[in-house]
Amino acid sequence: MMQQKIILPKRRKDSIFNRNSPLFVARLSFLVSVLIALMTFLLGWLEDSLFYKANGLIALTDIVNSAILLTAVAHSNREPDSFFNYGYGKYESFGIFVSSSLITLITIYTIYEAVVSFGKIVPIGNFTYLILFSLVSASLMFWMHKTLLRYYNNFQLPILRYDAEVWKYDSIIEIGVILTLFLCVILDKLGFTSAARIADSVSAIIFVAIAMRIPIKFGKKSIDQLLDRTMPEKFHYDILSVIAENFKNICEFRNIYARQSGKDIFVEIDVVLPYDFTLAEAYEIEKKITNEIRTMYSNAIPRIYVVPCSKDCIYDNINHCPVKKWKKELGNL
Amino acid sequence: MMQQKIILPKRRKDSIFNRNSPLFVARLSFLVSVLIALMTFLLGWLEDSLFYKANGLIALTDIVNSAILLTAVAHSNREPDSFFNYGYGKYESFGIFVSSSLITLITIYTIYEAVVSFGKIVPIGNFTYLILFSLVSASLMFWMHKTLLRYYNNFQLPILRYDAEVWKYDSIIEIGVILTLFLCVILDKLGFTSAARIADSVSAIIFVAIAMRIPIKFGKKSIDQLLDRTMPEKFHYDILSVIAENFKNICEFRNIYARQSGKDIFVEIDVVLPYDFTLAEAYEIEKKITNEIRTMYSNAIPRIYVVPCSKDCIYDNINHCPVKKWKKELGNL
Ligand SMILES: [Zn+2]
Ligand SMILES: [Zn+2]
Repeated sequence: MMQQKIILPKRRKDSIFNRNSPLFVARLSFLVSVLIALMTFLLGWLEDSLFYKANGLIALTDIVNSAILLTAVAHSNREPDSFFNYGYGKYESFGIFVSSSLITLITIYTIYEAVVSFGKIVPIGNFTYLILFSLVSASLMFWMHKTLLRYYNNFQLPILRYDAEVWKYDSIIEIGVILTLFLCVILDKLGFTSAARIADSVSAIIFVAIAMRIPIKFGKKSIDQLLDRTMPEKFHYDILSVIAENFKNICEFRNIYARQSGKDIFVEIDVVLPYDFTLAEAYEIEKKITNEIRTMYSNAIPRIYVVPCSKDCIYDNINHCPVKKWKKELGNL
Repeated sequence: MMQQKIILPKRRKDSIFNRNSPLFVARLSFLVSVLIALMTFLLGWLEDSLFYKANGLIALTDIVNSAILLTAVAHSNREPDSFFNYGYGKYESFGIFVSSSLITLITIYTIYEAVVSFGKIVPIGNFTYLILFSLVSASLMFWMHKTLLRYYNNFQLPILRYDAEVWKYDSIIEIGVILTLFLCVILDKLGFTSAARIADSVSAIIFVAIAMRIPIKFGKKSIDQLLDRTMPEKFHYDILSVIAENFKNICEFRNIYARQSGKDIFVEIDVVLPYDFTLAEAYEIEKKITNEIRTMYSNAIPRIYVVPCSKDCIYDNINHCPVKKWKKELGNL
């Protein structure tokens, strides 16, 4: 078969068909959310059931959600430029914040609706359709969860991790729906009609409440990043351990500043070095420390700020600086 | 009169009665919003009029708004600590973002309501009460605007500026309400009843749309700050001019990174200096540049990141480095 060569603009060709890009999985996530929403509305229209109308709201939220994430991934993928000197990493945190706030609000509304209509049975349509739809949805959702986790492991973008968890959240709700359906049908067949109604409402509230933990957890984390809250203790201990290893090379350790922006961790470390060290000598020590940090955290962007010592190592006309002594004993670093 | 000395915990005493603190004006702003809301609800209850019910929504928003700002000011007032290495400045941006989003949503809802009920006259109660209430409200709001601007000029916290503008926004709406009331009453007295109804709806939409520009403008700015978007061009030119003045003191200028967090402007400047400069010599140059930047921008927190030159100034066994030449000619800086 003859294949005609189509010349596409470079950027476009790259981004749409390149499976090796976080953009690919973000687009896939968006398409799957549109697909599930279409399925939901089609069935809702065929069956005219309240069940699908409630699900439709969640499906719509998922589309908005995926669109936010797609935008955030497209942005955070860019290199730092003159508009964003520190890169576009904060777009991710902001995207996660907006999306998780949206999901939390929708979830609270869903729980409110479930409480208000507690015990009132929702007229469900064709049972086979329902189970089939929920099974297909849940599988698709779980597959998206797995795919996104794989991409997260490759690209380390926090937003992929978040999207993976949101799909898990959706699949938990969907499985909850399936289990509840079975339970209600069984209870109904056995004649416990009122028990079936209560089971329906109770399980809806429980499943939604369990799933709500995901957007709350990630929303809180994204706010911390937007506020430049410092990194977790573990990170600080690891950085301090690198400094401790290099303690004989520095006069004094003053401070660590750390903040996260997307996958980038900006670390600034203030140290004091002998006032008569040359810049070349100081730079050797800097490089040693930053390399060690980058070996531990490949996403870290460390910078060492050096301040000259106050010459207080010199007394009796002799330089007692322990760093200089060490350096002499060791030769060049 | 005998005055008993009451010993309050230090922090509390300081913050409530100290007029020289941004917290004082944030609390005042909160109290005034509660006062106006109480007036609105009292009149609404006495008059049972739709006008006050609509105003009540705005009054409630103002309370939520002031509470957000109060929290943000209380936080951003704190010194940097181990949780927030870069200080609490981003709390301000986040507070402004949440508050301006809220106001924008409420404003869109208000315009929507005005469009839906277009031309339907709202049964207004006692005209004298209405005018009196609106005049008092507008004066209070404008006074808050002025007070907050004065505090902003003292403390430079962007959030005080924002709150000042929000109060202006509220007073614009209130003045719009007064003007509309007069216009409607005059039109009504002259017999143009339908004209009065249309004038009411049209002016409501126009005034709200004008006022909406404030939260949108500040909301956009706060998002830029949360995303670590770089500073406006003016700022970059000013920093570049300082570097240009010090150009003979450095081998090479590499990059500027700038970002804002509350009132703080973090600036990082990458420069190259001769590899055989001592740290003390390099520090002199650093201090000169940072001092000049701080003279221009008192809120700037500049840091100079020095990298040694690659020794390419040395050829024919002679050091041709222009920085060294300058330094020799000038003596010590
Ligand atoms: Zn020393
Ligand atoms: Zn040079």
